[in-house]
Amino acid sequence: MANPIDLDKAAATIRRFITGKLLESGLTGYVIGLSGGLDSALAAALAAKAVGNHKLYGLMLPYRVSSKSSLEDARELASHLNIESREIEISPMLDAYFAEVSTADRVRIGNKAARERMSILFDFAQARQSLVLGTSNRTEFALGYTTWHGDSAASINPLADLYKSEVLEIARMVGLPERIITKSPSADLWPGQTDEEELGITYYTLDKLLIRLLDDGESSVDRLQSEGFALTDISRVVSLVNRNSYKRKMPSIASLGRDPVPERLQLQA
Amino acid sequence: MANPIDLDKAAATIRRFITGKLLESGLTGYVIGLSGGLDSALAAALAAKAVGNHKLYGLMLPYRVSSKSSLEDARELASHLNIESREIEISPMLDAYFAEVSTADRVRIGNKAARERMSILFDFAQARQSLVLGTSNRTEFALGYTTWHGDSAASINPLADLYKSEVLEIARMVGLPERIITKSPSADLWPGQTDEEELGITYYTLDKLLIRLLDDGESSVDRLQSEGFALTDISRVVSLVNRNSYKRKMPSIASLGRDPVPERLQLQA
Repeated sequence: MANPIDLDKAAATIRRFITGKLLESGLTGYVIGLSGGLDSALAAALAAKAVGNHKLYGLMLPYRVSSKSSLEDARELASHLNIESREIEISPMLDAYFAEVSTADRVRIGNKAARERMSILFDFAQARQSLVLGTSNRTEFALGYTTWHGDSAASINPLADLYKSEVLEIARMVGLPERIITKSPSADLWPGQTDEEELGITYYTLDKLLIRLLDDGESSVDRLQSEGFALTDISRVVSLVNRNSYKRKMPSIASLGRDPVPERLQLQA
Repeated sequence: MANPIDLDKAAATIRRFITGKLLESGLTGYVIGLSGGLDSALAAALAAKAVGNHKLYGLMLPYRVSSKSSLEDARELASHLNIESREIEISPMLDAYFAEVSTADRVRIGNKAARERMSILFDFAQARQSLVLGTSNRTEFALGYTTWHGDSAASINPLADLYKSEVLEIARMVGLPERIITKSPSADLWPGQTDEEELGITYYTLDKLLIRLLDDGESSVDRLQSEGFALTDISRVVSLVNRNSYKRKMPSIASLGRDPVPERLQLQA
């Protein structure tokens, strides 16, 4: 079985990554969406330590149905980290669209909200000559528990190799506000939503299972069951990983046999 | 030097790709944004032939400053292909945002418009249990001449291995409306914009140069100049390919040494 990673070292690696990517880009800082949740709080805290609080700009982008206490938590975090921030309600933009295309489907509304936020974050990044700092973790990335071209879309994703339970542990280590650490994780796409209820499994169990499947490469259902994982959990998790694999790669193209465009061209004088 | 590709075969390959991806997905059809331009017209025409016009749904998503004649062209195309379509003006959504965050920067406005369109296409795709059919070609993909998470974001990209000049040739072969074929390519992000003016090079020259650089792997500036390419063109094109490489891949993640999440997990009973 894979050894647990050293969380102190992981945090240091992530901070170096955040610093290095900014230097590489030649830009001036990072823009981050602050939801009031754990992931954006940790990403912001690590970035503030890595590049300095003055190079970080937080955006709170609540929708009408977003949790008021989450907004409070986001404000508290911005103040705790002493970073510049701004609130923009996205209800007018969503209202303008759903006045035209009416729906009661909360998943569609949630996805539209996530993409509106992405679009605003990139607009601010462009205006401020900054990068968008992503907040996706390995658990949600593996499950595809994200809105494609929405919350998972960012310039860089510093937390994407950390499972959710590790995000929590590092958040404790760096001393994030207690309320952010102890509340139930939620994508806040509709009132009362919690991730664990929607996924039907606790993050504790989910991450243990994902480590066995992804990091240990365990594929025996018998063995996983003998370790205490429920068959329904195993099957649902594997099905999500497989079904949402498209969110983890670029859209496929109709190949006509040409080489892919290389990352870098080099000319000889 | 790379041989020119057989455009008849290429069109057939693309049609098979479009059919195959729909079958794989288990969904019911494609949603496509119709700008009135050449790329979306060809993608729509090939898809209509591949899966049938009744499985294709066109969305015209003009902004206040979008060209009226482009909208006319998009309508004519929908009628020519006999596909269901709908028009939704995106001005109210953009106005709602820019009332809050005012700017005169037409690039920011253009990017916001491109991302609004992406978000609407994916919303319709979800509502109709469909895929979003992309329209990006290899020329713009190589240069990064697109809005990230905007016009280049789609479920699949059928034209992404075709250079713009090949898109034009195939469009002639399949008999697209003459006006769409003969007008100047434009992202239509602001009035009067044309790609060739903005890029400072014609597509004819650009594609010849990209074929030498990407497909032939030519890296000698001397040789390229002796073939008639201007040094300023070579240098600008290489610089765009390199500078925008981030748009051709997933956002980088801070790796902690874990294996990437695999495309597919397989369980053993």
